[in-house]
Parts: sequence; C-alpha cells; structure tokens
Amino acid sequence: MTNTEQQNQMANAIRFLAIDAIEKANSGHPGLPMGAADVATVLYTKFLAHDPKNPHWPNRDRFVLSAGHGSMLLYALLYLSGYEDISLQDLKNFRQLGSKLAGHPEYRHAAGIETTTGPLGQGLANAVGMALGERLQNARFGDLINHYTYVLVGDGCLMEGISQEAISLAGHLKLNKLIVLWDDNNISIDGAISLADSTDQIARFKASGWETHKVNGHDQAAIAKAIELAQDSDKPTLIACKTTIGFGAPNKAGTNKVHGAPLGAGEIAETRIALGWDSEPFTIPADILDNWRLAGLNAAKKRQKWEEKLANLPVSERVEFERLIRGDLLGGFYGAIDDYKQKLIKERPFVATRKASEMALEVINEVVTETIGGSADLTGSNNTKTSQMESISAENFSGRYLHYGIREHAMGAVMNGLALHGGFIPYGGTFLCFSDYMRPAMRLSSLMGLRVIYVMTHDSIGLGEDGPTHQPVEHLASLRAMPNHLVFRPADAMETVECWQLALNARKTPSTLALSRQNLPLLRQEYEEENLCMLGAYELLTASDDAQVTLFSSGSELQIAVKAHAILERKGIPTRVVSVPCFELFAQQSLSYQRALIGNAPIKIAIEAAVRQGWDCFIGGDGVFIGMEGFGASGTIDALYAHFGITCENVVATVEKELEKISRKNTK
Amino acid sequence: MTNTEQQNQMANAIRFLAIDAIEKANSGHPGLPMGAADVATVLYTKFLAHDPKNPHWPNRDRFVLSAGHGSMLLYALLYLSGYEDISLQDLKNFRQLGSKLAGHPEYRHAAGIETTTGPLGQGLANAVGMALGERLQNARFGDLINHYTYVLVGDGCLMEGISQEAISLAGHLKLNKLIVLWDDNNISIDGAISLADSTDQIARFKASGWETHKVNGHDQAAIAKAIELAQDSDKPTLIACKTTIGFGAPNKAGTNKVHGAPLGAGEIAETRIALGWDSEPFTIPADILDNWRLAGLNAAKKRQKWEEKLANLPVSERVEFERLIRGDLLGGFYGAIDDYKQKLIKERPFVATRKASEMALEVINEVVTETIGGSADLTGSNNTKTSQMESISAENFSGRYLHYGIREHAMGAVMNGLALHGGFIPYGGTFLCFSDYMRPAMRLSSLMGLRVIYVMTHDSIGLGEDGPTHQPVEHLASLRAMPNHLVFRPADAMETVECWQLALNARKTPSTLALSRQNLPLLRQEYEEENLCMLGAYELLTASDDAQVTLFSSGSELQIAVKAHAILERKGIPTRVVSVPCFELFAQQSLSYQRALIGNAPIKIAIEAAVRQGWDCFIGGDGVFIGMEGFGASGTIDALYAHFGITCENVVATVEKELEKISRKNTK
Repeated sequence: MTNTEQQNQMANAIRFLAIDAIEKANSGHPGLPMGAADVATVLYTKFLAHDPKNPHWPNRDRFVLSAGHGSMLLYALLYLSGYEDISLQDLKNFRQLGSKLAGHPEYRHAAGIETTTGPLGQGLANAVGMALGERLQNARFGDLINHYTYVLVGDGCLMEGISQEAISLAGHLKLNKLIVLWDDNNISIDGAISLADSTDQIARFKASGWETHKVNGHDQAAIAKAIELAQDSDKPTLIACKTTIGFGAPNKAGTNKVHGAPLGAGEIAETRIALGWDSEPFTIPADILDNWRLAGLNAAKKRQKWEEKLANLPVSERVEFERLIRGDLLGGFYGAIDDYKQKLIKERPFVATRKASEMALEVINEVVTETIGGSADLTGSNNTKTSQMESISAENFSGRYLHYGIREHAMGAVMNGLALHGGFIPYGGTFLCFSDYMRPAMRLSSLMGLRVIYVMTHDSIGLGEDGPTHQPVEHLASLRAMPNHLVFRPADAMETVECWQLALNARKTPSTLALSRQNLPLLRQEYEEENLCMLGAYELLTASDDAQVTLFSSGSELQIAVKAHAILERKGIPTRVVSVPCFELFAQQSLSYQRALIGNAPIKIAIEAAVRQGWDCFIGGDGVFIGMEGFGASGTIDALYAHFGITCENVVATVEKELEKISRKNTK
Repeated sequence: MTNTEQQNQMANAIRFLAIDAIEKANSGHPGLPMGAADVATVLYTKFLAHDPKNPHWPNRDRFVLSAGHGSMLLYALLYLSGYEDISLQDLKNFRQLGSKLAGHPEYRHAAGIETTTGPLGQGLANAVGMALGERLQNARFGDLINHYTYVLVGDGCLMEGISQEAISLAGHLKLNKLIVLWDDNNISIDGAISLADSTDQIARFKASGWETHKVNGHDQAAIAKAIELAQDSDKPTLIACKTTIGFGAPNKAGTNKVHGAPLGAGEIAETRIALGWDSEPFTIPADILDNWRLAGLNAAKKRQKWEEKLANLPVSERVEFERLIRGDLLGGFYGAIDDYKQKLIKERPFVATRKASEMALEVINEVVTETIGGSADLTGSNNTKTSQMESISAENFSGRYLHYGIREHAMGAVMNGLALHGGFIPYGGTFLCFSDYMRPAMRLSSLMGLRVIYVMTHDSIGLGEDGPTHQPVEHLASLRAMPNHLVFRPADAMETVECWQLALNARKTPSTLALSRQNLPLLRQEYEEENLCMLGAYELLTASDDAQVTLFSSGSELQIAVKAHAILERKGIPTRVVSVPCFELFAQQSLSYQRALIGNAPIKIAIEAAVRQGWDCFIGGDGVFIGMEGFGASGTIDALYAHFGITCENVVATVEKELEKISRKNTK
C-alpha cells in the first residue's frame, strides 16, 4: 500500500463520520463506509465530475450507492465535498424521523442522492439506465452530455438475480462509460460469502462482455489506476476492490459483526487509536476538510466550461435541451391528442386496448420525442413499438426503442434509471402477470415518484389458452395497493388515449396501463374535450329513472356492463353504468363527487375479471362482485368468460335475483 | 449427424404430435417441441429412469420443462412413453377448457408433469430444489434415493435474473446430479437473441462452478455422449444443445415465426414432406410407437429393482420414508404444540413474533424432522435457524438449514422444488418487504398448491430506522389478494405457534407468516385447546354490554386495540376486540360465523400498520381505518407509530369523534 498519510486521513474522515453518526443514531451499517472509504475517496477527489454548489448539473457524473445500507458513506461524501444540502447537524440527525439522512439513501431527500437504494441490486440496474440515458442524450446533443456513471455494489447486489439482467444488458449495449466498483469484502449478514456463494465474479462479468480489474481496495493509487483504465475502455468495467469490511476496527473488522450494528463505545475508542484519528466525534480536522472541499471545487471547474458549451448551442437546441431536462411536454401534445380523440369518435375502432395503446403511441411518439419505448421480448404482443422508433443498439444510440430481452426486472429498474437521469420518459411492456417479476422496481418508481410507464398487456383471463400462469387475477388489486402508483385499466380506445395522457402528465407518479389482448368496441358515444378518465371513475350511461342498479366496471368488462344496461333498461329496470379506469384518481376527487358517483341505487354490482379486493369502496360489503375467485384456466376466451360467469347474462340474472330479494324483504 | 432413420422418426413423432395438436387447438408454441425433439428423445429413451405405469415412484429421475411454452414437447413425451394419464384424445383436446393438457404444463393435471412452468426461469430453479431434495434424501436414506434431475431451458430462462440465483446456488452446492439441457436456438419472440443479449452462457455457467458441454442438438449420439459425461461429473452440468427452432419446417424454421403460433396447413404439409412423415394427424406409425413404449418399459426396470430395495429396508425406516413421501406429520407434533401452548400461558413471554416464531420452531423442528429451514441471508433477523439445524453444504447434506444467500427469488422457487420433490417441508425467511423479489415463485406455490412456508419478518413500519425501502405497507394486501395463499399475521407468541401449526397442516396451500421485529406482549389470557387462529378471526375481548365499538386488528397492532379496549370500557363505552390473524381462513368460515363475529356495533374500526385495502370486508365502507396511507419513513419505532397516528390515543379519540357524530345525527 502506497497511501500517503493524507490519503488515509481523507478516507478516515468518511469512516469517522459514519462511525459517529451511526453511534449517535444507535442504528446503521458502519461496515461498508469503513471498508469502501478508500475507494470512495479516490472516486470523489480524483475522478467524479460534479459540482457540489450546482448538484443538478445535467452533465455531472452519476454516483450510485447500490449497497444502500452503507448510506453513511454517501452522506459523508456529500458533506465532505461541500453539498449545502447536508450539514453537520444533518449528520447528527441521521436516521431520525424527518431527517434528510434516512436509514437508506432516499431520492429527493437531498441533492447528490441520485436514486433511492437499499433493496439490493436495484442501484446497479438504475446505473445501467443512467449510463444508457447518457449515451442516448449524447447521440442527440453530442458532447454536451458526455459523463461517466459510477456505481458501488456489494456482494448482495451481485447475488440478486437482477444483477445478471443488468450486467448482461449493459455488456450487450457496450455501455463503456459505466464503471462498477465492487466492494469485495467476502462478508454478508449470515457470515462469510463462502456460506452461500462460490461464483467467480470476474469471470461472470467477462462472460457478459465486461472489462474487469482487480485491486486492493485500500490502495488508493491502485484504485486510481484501475479507474483510469476503466474510463478508456470500450466496454463497461467491473473493478473488484478487495476490501476489509469495517476497516480499522481492531476487533470487528472483517466480520459480519460490523455489517449492520453500531460499533459501540469501546470499539470506537480502539478504532480511533488504530487509525490515528484523535478528533472529537463529528469533527474533521481543518486541513482534511479543506482538502475535501478543494476537491469539490476542482471538480466543479468542468461544469463552468460546460456552461459555456451550453451557451454556445443554437438557441432552438438549447431551449429543447432545457425543456427535456425540466421534463415539460411540448404544447403540441395536447392538440395532437385532441385531434386523435375526434378521429376515434368518427372511426369507432373495434380493437384490443393493447392495439389502441399502439395507436395512441403513434400520435404521442410523434410529438413527445423524449419517450423511450421497449418491451421484455414481447414487442409484437405489447404493441409498444411505433413507426417512429428505431431499435437502440451498441451501434445506434439515436434509436428510441429498447429490446430489453427477457429481463422484466432490469427493465423496470433501467426505466427508473432513465427517468432519474433526466431527459426521457421511459415506457416498457410485458404481460400484466409478469409485473410480479419487476415489482421491486415498480415499487421504487412509486417511492421515488418517477414518471415511468408500465405497459402491461394481456390483463386478464381474456388472454385465453396460455392459462393460469399467464392470467393475472390478483395483479390489479396488488398494484392498486401500492402507494403513489396510478393503475389504469381503460375500456376502449378512447379511454386508452386518455389514460396515456394522464400517465404522461403525472410527473411524480409512475403508471401502469393494464391492457386487453382481446378486441373491444368503442363505448364512448360522443367527443368530450375533457379527459373523463381524469376523474378516475365517471358515469358512462345514465339510468332512465331513479337508478335501481349501478354497474361499476373497468377495462374489457365494461362492455358487458353496457350490454347489460340495455337489457335491464328494456326490462324497465333503471340502471346506471359507471366506468372505473383508475381507482387512485377517483380517490383524489372530492368526497361529494365520490358519493354522488357511487350513488344510492339499492343494487350495486362490480364487474372485473380479477379478484374482488378493493372494489368494496364502490359497492360496499353488501354489493355483488362478478369476477374471479381463484386462478384462471387454459381455454378459449369465450369458454373462460362463460365458465367463470363473467357474462352479460349473469349480470342480468344477478340483478333479477337481487331485485327479488329486495321485494321479499319489503313484503315481510 | 449420425442419427439413424429410426432415431429421426422417434423424434419426428414428438414433432408431429406437437404440430398437429397445436394446429387443432389453433394455439400454441411449435418451435420448441420441433427444435428440442432430438434432445428429448435421447433423454427419454436412453437415460430417464422413470416408470410410466408408476409415475410417482419416489426415486424417478425428474424432468422439468422450464421453457413451459413448449408444453407439447412434454405432453408428447408422456403419451409416447406410455403414461396412462394422457390419451390421444387428450392430445386432441390440447388447450381446451377442462383439458389436462393446458397451454402450459400444470402440476396435478397429469402424472409426469413435475411442476407448473411458463413463467420463465422458474423451472430451472425448481429443478435446483429437486436436485437438492435428492441429495438431502440421499443423505438420510442412502441409495434408496439416488436420481438425476434434468431440466430443459430456453434462452428466456437464462436471461431471467432468477437463473443466475439458481445456477450460482447449484454450483455452490455442487449439485452434480443436476443436468441442464439448454435449447440453444438463438431465437426469442422479438427476433434473434443478438437483439438483446451477447452473453457467453458457457463461460457464465463455468464462473458459477458448472461443468459445460456444447453439442449439435440434432445429433442424437452427441447428445447421448454429453449426458453420459454429465452423469459422471462432480459438478452440475450445462449441455448447450445448438438447435434450430421449428426444426423441419421448410420456411419458418430458424425464425421467430415458429415460436408461438400454429404452423398453418401449408407449412405443415411441406414439413411432412421435408421430414418424410406421411402419417395422418395424430397417428404414430406402429413401429415408432412400439419403440417409444418399449423405452418406457425398459426404463421401468429400475423401479422394480428399487422396490426390492425398499422392501429390504428395516421396517421403521420404511415406515418413516413412506410417511415422508405421503407428507403426513408425526402424531407427536400435536402434543408438543399443546405442551408449548400451556407453557406460554404460564411464562407470558414479551417477545417479537419473529422470536416467537423461533421459539415455536424449536418445538416444531424437534418433532417435524422434515422441515428444511433457510433464509436469504437474514438468518439472525428472521430467526429461522433453530438448535437442531446444521447448515447444509456441498460437504454436508445431512444438514437441515440452507443459507440461500441474497437470492429471495431462487429461495422461493427452490422451496417449490423441495416441496415438489417430496419428503420435505421447506420454510424460508426474508423481510416482508422483499417478498416482492420472489413474488413469481410465491404465486407458483399457490397455483400448484404446495406446502411452502414463507417466514416474512420486519412486517411493518415497526422495523424502524431502515426506512421506507424496507417497510412493507402494501404487501399484506397484495399477498392477501393472491388466491390459495394463507397470509398469517399473528399478534403474540400464542398466535404465532397456532399459525405455524395451521401452516404445517395446510398440505395444499402455501403460507406466509408476517412477523414483527418489535417485542409484543402475550395477549391471550387463558389456555385454549382449540387453535383459535384456525377461525381466521375471533373475539379476543368481549364488550361489557351491547357493543358500541368493535376494534379489528392483526399482528403488532392488536396490543393497541387491547389497550384502547381497557380505556374505552373504563369510559363506559362497551367495546369488543377482534383479532384477525388470517383473512383467508376467516373467509372459509360459515356466513353465520362471519356475520356474528363482525357484529352490529355502530362503530367499526380496523387497525393495521399497512394500507386499508381489504379491510372493508370487516368494517364496511363507512368503517374507520387506522393505518398507513402511503410509504413509511426512517425513524425510531415510537416516533413512527406516533407520526402515522397508529396509537391507542388515536383509537380512543377516533371512537369519541365517531360517537359524537352519531349523537349529532340522533338529535337531528
């Protein structure tokens, strides 16, 4: 090891901020910040292009702490580098309610936190999305965007399956400005890695087309050398940094005892002696802090040059760039949607909502050029690729469509990374049933409040013969249960474009569009300037008199309600039909709107080819639900709907049975 | 290629059964059965130890079709080998409602279908579980169990992240009797694999400690040679079988057009000519069928020898083996649980339910020796390892505890494989929040009806400082939405052991135990012989008079309801407390029990530190829910409960507000 005393002390500054904050909080993970401090010091003081005073600079290098439990590493780095968002007081407030410095790094809590991490492997895949975003913007704006993406991963990140999806995609796309620093410390919570894994990670990354280096993770010169080589590679690079977890703690270093618990006063005292650190808790010697701040100032020089570059861009290009970074939609979007809605009313297409989604996207992708489409190898089934979109490849980053491969989980997390990078609105498709494969990434879209759009087709037993493994029944309920996530289930081509508009307008909320495989008629009769789906639920058909029955439905089952409405009205039973494209938006309406829409009809029936959970808020505990009670089956669509009783006939018969019950009660 | 004419025709029998069944169904995936027919023919006629007339023979070799969309390959193999469950008529009924031959292979539909596949990658991980089950039983019963596990995977299986978790675990455990046949056809739904992937799969498997071979997947002698080598390896083996998707179809072979759609009459006619197959649809030439059936009879000889081996076992060992295979629990189980319940009432431990789960497991694992515990690297946090359990390793398969590594998804799927193999009851732990990482495997536990137990600790904001990435809020609702899945959320040590008992008794239903991080008092006052949790929900505390209030709650919040009960009763407000450990079991009770338990108290309040969705079935749309509306936060547990208003004070205040509303209404 050739570290100078100053290099060691720079790293120790991180170590002791972590030790002290965790001790004060009496909670946290000191092992990683102590072990990875040398690696992080090299990265932040010698390589990272960033500006602590302008933390949102679009061409900054990105740093992702994928091993999010080591949050104090990141917080210490930001404080030491001079990010104003993080004060010494904040460090002392680590892990307390309301603190910017949460247990795991939370996006939007403080500048410099590029993404929310903690669920392992996600940060690595986010970083792949960021590195992809960089290449895509570079293809559009040339050298204006030209930065590195660094990510620090732990053993846990590399054991999670999502890591394989992420690294194989990154290798395939030759994302050469992506540099992974692996905190290779041989320890996980249960003990030595050898308890559960014997993978040769270097060989594994090589197999996916990566460059690899192996260094002593406490030798700052060696680390710097490896990063230099990585910067010049034409492939993404893994740097295996062999470290000692809890480096410096005389009794606990190198063991799982230092992973996730405060060191304790005794061990801290011994660590101070061992590392020659005699400052008080939360105190950084002035010369060390100065050096850290100087590094921050030096890094910022690149931004000043960049501002000139931006200023020299042709005005129209600069305006466009700044709009994209802000995330505003072009005004033309609204007119285009409006024209398309008028056309729909005239042409009344009888199409699956997945096809209607493609039709809407043809209009949208023409005017919203920042969309990046994709699918997890179901392009033709998800209808996600429109005529404007060329495929993205290692040779063509000017494309707008990504073949994610059979990698749903990475797709979700890469879309998060694209949204976090800025400048793009990602959408990606798979079957609704396989949303399960990427649920951790979907949850992070919601938690971070990212505009990511999940195009989930084949949204019920309506997919037919592929059977129960492919037929979602619980997925609508389980996604509706997720906070800050709009689940749209449009019923026809008109609702589909309205839902797309709402998804694009939801700047801080991800959306799922649940779309049918089977063709559906246009149910909306007249052109409405207003986006009716914005209400979450609305009256599609009124009753001829005081309603005896209200039928609530969504998606492909709304047509059943509409047919039943005609029959019931013909039988003299006044019936309303309420379309429910989005539970979450309905819940945001005024209570008076909600009450009026639900209404007082004595018979309330909900129809959805899925489980009942959640529908009680429309029909109450006494309402009747016509849908699924268990898993689906393999068969033709007609046979399945008949078998499970999700038919117009059953709705009519149910109403008649309920009316009879009421009349019996009244005559008692 | 050295195939004989007969070898080719044996394989063509598979191809044409697949072609004809898919054409008749007008739906299905011919590409894989046609491409992998040679590989499958070699495996089933030369290697697979199975007995079509005794398909449940415990020591049979297992074959898993991980690429489940190629279901007709498996159905054809079973029919040709002489499995009585599958007739020619069944083949003609492929993909029709009620058919045994569903779109994807469904476990329990017909003997010979070892697992439900379709969601990609799952079958590979199930096979790892089966191969592990084999080693574990071999360690217990010696040569009585000593078989191979074969699995056919497609490119999609290998792109899914779960594949990495599965192969790294299998390599680590040196599961040398696991043989993976990769249908290496370079095609996925979107087109050439090169659209999305450039991974060197051979190198990747080697990096995880596998033996690898590469063969021409249409050269039966070469395939046989590779399988022979694999059988003798001391590592798991990947055999990359280079095949042509849709082999034999003159115009569509080698393209994605043949993946998932019927060939069509014209192409079928040309394929018949190209492959020299002049039989009518669904007709196998007698000599070819004879050869297939003969191979089935030959394979069965191994079973006959095995029966002798079983018969020669000491009686007690044989009885024990047969009990394990049946899946019956030993009678001693019930007594042990009962003793423990009496002890609990006496000792009244104040412990987290995760600790209570460990205490219950100490009792259970002593008498239920077929449990295989484990955790995804959170052993100390999930409290899953009891004193009886040694760690399983490549050197010690007599252990009972598996360190799954940070691989939740593989854990779920490997547990499915262990349950499918027979002889074991697997349970595995992680944080409830990370159930999302293994949801596709959990869904398959439910769909297949497997006794797999998910031990999900840290089940709410009660985990404290780790923050919202680690705090489940929607997970209870989303798991309760899943059909055939028991979600238990016990409130104290007594309910915890009762829930464990129910989970172990649920032979055809998986269970999730949601357990607290924080300590909880014993709430049950008296010893009850009956398992009260069996009712799903029960009255814990009665009201002193006609109830004005019913408080419904589960898990760690039940203590809040109990405290509020005391205060409200003291204030003269008659209040009931209903404990709700399991929604699904409550829904199975008689309507009269359900109605009586819910009762008529004018004020109904549910308290759970999670989202409301689902609770309306107890409290109705007008009931009050005290819980979470969005994501959690990082902070101490007390600060969090206070911040989100999940407190006794808030319950009491809410009751008083509601009473006031009622009295205002009455005076109007």
